[in-house]
Order: sequence, then structure tokens, then C-alpha cells
Amino acid sequence: MNINTFLELSGTIAFAVSGTNTASEKRMDIFGCLVIAFVSAVGGGSLRDLLLGIQPVSWIQDNNTIIAVSIGCLLAYFFKKRITKLRKTLFLFDTIGISLFTVIGINKALLVGVNPAVALMMGISSAVFGGVLRDVLCNEIPLIFKQEVYATACLAGGLLYLFLRQLGISEPFDLIATSAFIFCIRILAVKYKWTLHF
Amino acid sequence: MNINTFLELSGTIAFAVSGTNTASEKRMDIFGCLVIAFVSAVGGGSLRDLLLGIQPVSWIQDNNTIIAVSIGCLLAYFFKKRITKLRKTLFLFDTIGISLFTVIGINKALLVGVNPAVALMMGISSAVFGGVLRDVLCNEIPLIFKQEVYATACLAGGLLYLFLRQLGISEPFDLIATSAFIFCIRILAVKYKWTLHF
Amino acid sequence: MNINTFLELSGTIAFAVSGTNTASEKRMDIFGCLVIAFVSAVGGGSLRDLLLGIQPVSWIQDNNTIIAVSIGCLLAYFFKKRITKLRKTLFLFDTIGISLFTVIGINKALLVGVNPAVALMMGISSAVFGGVLRDVLCNEIPLIFKQEVYATACLAGGLLYLFLRQLGISEPFDLIATSAFIFCIRILAVKYKWTLHF
Repeated sequence: MNINTFLELSGTIAFAVSGTNTASEKRMDIFGCLVIAFVSAVGGGSLRDLLLGIQPVSWIQDNNTIIAVSIGCLLAYFFKKRITKLRKTLFLFDTIGISLFTVIGINKALLVGVNPAVALMMGISSAVFGGVLRDVLCNEIPLIFKQEVYATACLAGGLLYLFLRQLGISEPFDLIATSAFIFCIRILAVKYKWTLHF
Repeated sequence: MNINTFLELSGTIAFAVSGTNTASEKRMDIFGCLVIAFVSAVGGGSLRDLLLGIQPVSWIQDNNTIIAVSIGCLLAYFFKKRITKLRKTLFLFDTIGISLFTVIGINKALLVGVNPAVALMMGISSAVFGGVLRDVLCNEIPLIFKQEVYATACLAGGLLYLFLRQLGISEPFDLIATSAFIFCIRILAVKYKWTLHF
Repeated sequence: MNINTFLELSGTIAFAVSGTNTASEKRMDIFGCLVIAFVSAVGGGSLRDLLLGIQPVSWIQDNNTIIAVSIGCLLAYFFKKRITKLRKTLFLFDTIGISLFTVIGINKALLVGVNPAVALMMGISSAVFGGVLRDVLCNEIPLIFKQEVYATACLAGGLLYLFLRQLGISEPFDLIATSAFIFCIRILAVKYKWTLHF
């Protein structure tokens, strides 16, 4: 398993956890939660693959994604027993998800040969879409609207990633550094209530 | 016309009826209803075809789908005159729609050569997506969230279908038996208020 | 640059303005507005290309679309300073967007070789989808539901376009006449409160 697959599966698990949390808060039944977890985990990646013309989409090829989603659901189940403030868990795993998917999205887009500005937009869209789908299906106001520096964190991280690649930083480090950077920006932005209004 | 085409067109009509009902309840105009009917009827199938890499999507090839949607709209118009409880009609036709689309989705996915677990997810997603699109466009809380055993019925039916195929049941019977099974589960679940909470 | 590209970029700018307006009204930050502008500008066209099997989707090939979206965002920023009634600007640019995208959608679909009825549905879907995505992401009731003669204007315009082509009207004129026609219908419909209820 290479680093890309590993990060994508981690992102998938994180989005599955956040999906299960949102769905179970809405009092959906067990398999309803599984479906929402699945949709929020594969939504972003599917959109990315479709737009880039990678077909059939990647999660269809093997059982890895379905296993990752199931792990995410189980994790969410055990997390729920321990943690009372569901909102915080949801926020945490949603943030891990968008951090990883932004970087993977840009990376995949560049491999297909699109130019950097398009790749950046592709990374952000794929990161944001899974969570939006989750929130829309659960009839929640999308987090992208409620959380201040949401898309901005992805954009800043994406620019950093393109810059690191330009500098010639080798593969695992640029991916990990950027993901960590996006994660930190969003955590700090929410903690210190950063705003950047129009 | 083979059994697959027949079931798909029946599902299309059912979703068109449910789409027209939801839209007309929201006081949209005639052609607004037609568009919502169309979107909810082709949404699930389009998603399925796109993810599986079947392109252009199936409803583009001929006029059958557009005729089926038009029939659905006319049916909805006459049903409306007779039936006062719109909610019940909507529920009935939405249930017929998801029953048929679950089975067709799994079937098409298996033909493309994906493994059974993925095919199952594909069937459920394609069944659920048309109705979700309808509800989101009409700014309704998606039925998937309000109705208890919604995705669960599709999942149970999907498992039955894969089991019947394993047993070697021949083509028309497995499709029809599974659709009827999903339909019954959901009717019973709502009637007797079955729940399966996380 | 041919007339098709010119109209598509104009539609893109119009939807980017309407996206920025909606997002900034929701008090999103600068880059959040950029993302919503982007999604509402490319949503319809991406759906059209995906359904028709044109892949990768057209906006990925070059930087034109991203530049058009950026222009739209800047325009929205300057418009905001001058115009107090945001609703009206949003309505105006949304109407320009759907007028242009209906015609382009039908045109592209006919080039791929689908029959006219399908092409008509494709044009309407692609015109409506960008704005719907914008409204759903911003947790607004989609304009398609609130504005009376919304889809109807696209349908009427689409029929006119197919008729003009049948008459043999040459390329730039049929496109421009139809766009203007859709634009006028919707403006008049809202001004004089036309309704067409089911």
C-alpha cells in the first residue's frame, strides 16, 4: 500500500466517523447510518474521479473503501459511548477528512495533467463535497457555511502543497506536511474565532 | 423489451409520480413539476451509470425515459383529483421506486464486473439518490431521514437478491421477488413503526 | 474564441456574480465566496458534460473558466458597493446565467447526437443545476422553487431554439435570440407575477 492509498483510506475512515455521528444524532437506524457514512466518505472522491474522467471511480475497484467505511462506523459507535459532546468529535473528524482529501485531490488532478489552478479547485471541491452531501442528506446546515475558515483552510493548504512540490520536497513529506497544516489552520481558526469577511 | 427495461421504466414512472406530487404540493407551476419529476426519476440511474462508467448515461439514448416521466406526471395529475391524502400517495410511489431501483442497480453493477459488496452499495445509492434530489430541490427534509427503515429495506432486499442469484434462481423471478420483498418491508415497517436505532 | 465559448464564459461570469452575492449575504469569508462562486458557475456545465460523456469536463482543460469566475467575484464586489438591494442583483445575474446555459446545453447535446427532447431536458437541467447547488450549499430555498416561471422560461426558450434551428436560422442569431427570449420571459414573469399552477 503506497502513501496515497493510505491517506485516502484514512480520510475515508474520518469522513465515515463524521457521517455516522451526524446520522445517529438525527436518530437514523443502524443501516441508515451506514449509508450516510458511506455517502459522505465516497462523495468527494467520486466527484473528483468523475470530473477528471477516471472511470469507473476508484472505490468501485476493490473492497478497501467499504472496509474502511465499516471501520469508521464501528469507531463512531465506540466514540459515542465515551464522548458526550458529539459536536466536537464531528468537527475533529470532518477536519481530518478535508485535510487529507484536499491534498489527495490536488495530487490526483496533477497526475491527470491539468494545470495547477484547476488542480487546486479540484482538491478543494473534492474535500468539501463529501461533508456537504452528509449535511444535506441529514438536513443540517452544511458545516462549510457555519464554520468560519473552512474553504479558506483548504485553499491555503493547497497553495502550500503546490509550493512544496515546486521546491522539490519528496512525496510522503509534502502530503503529510500539507495535511497537518490544513488541520492546524482550521483548529486554530475555530478556537480563536478567526474571520475573513467579504 | 426485456424485464430490466420494463422494471426500470416502471421505477421511472413511480418516481415521476412522487416527484410531481412533492412539487405540486410546493405550488410549483406545471413545467416546474415536470422538471422535478424528471430529476427525481433519472437522478438515481444517472448516478449509477456515471459511477460505473456507463456513458453517455442510459436515459440519453432514446425517448423512453422522457415518455415514462410524462406518463408519471399525467398519472399524478389524475391521482391528485381522487386522493386527498397526498402524503400516502407520495409514500407509496416512492417505495415502488426504491424497490425497483435497488434491484436494477445491483444487477447493472454486477454486469460491469464489480464485487457483490460494491454492487450492493451501488444499488442502495441509486435507489435513494433520486428521492433525495427530489426532496432537496423541493426544500423538504429527505424521506430517507424521516422514514424509519428506509435504507435498511434496500439493504435487506439487496442481500436477498444476491442470495437468490447464488441459489441460481433465473432472471425474472429473482428481480420481481426482491422488489416485492423491499416493498413489503417498507410498508410493514411504517405501518407497525419498526425501529432499529443505533 | 467562437460564439459558444463566448456565451459559456458570459454565463459563467453571471453565475459567479450570483454565487458571490448569495455567499457574502450568508457572511462567508472571501475564499468561501470564491468556492461558492466557482461551484455555482461550473455545476451546470459539469453535470451536462458528465451526462453526455464528455470527459474530462470542459472547464478542466484550460484556465478560462477560473479567470471568468474570478472576474465574476470582482464584479460582485464592486456591484455590492453600489447596489443596496442584493436580491435584485442576484435575480438579474441568475437569470442571465440560466438564459445562456439553457441554449448552450441544448446545443452541446445536439452535437453529441441525442434527439431533441433529450437535448431540451439536458439544456434545462444544466441551466438549473448551478443555481440549485449554490442555493443548497448556502442553505437557501432554491430559487427554482420560489420564483414562479423559472423552469418554464427555460423550456419555452428551448422550444424556440429548436424551432429556429428547424427554420435554418444561422448560428450566432439563434443562440442570441433564444437567450434574450428566456431572459425577457423571466423578467416579465416576475414583474407581472405570472403564474401557471398545476
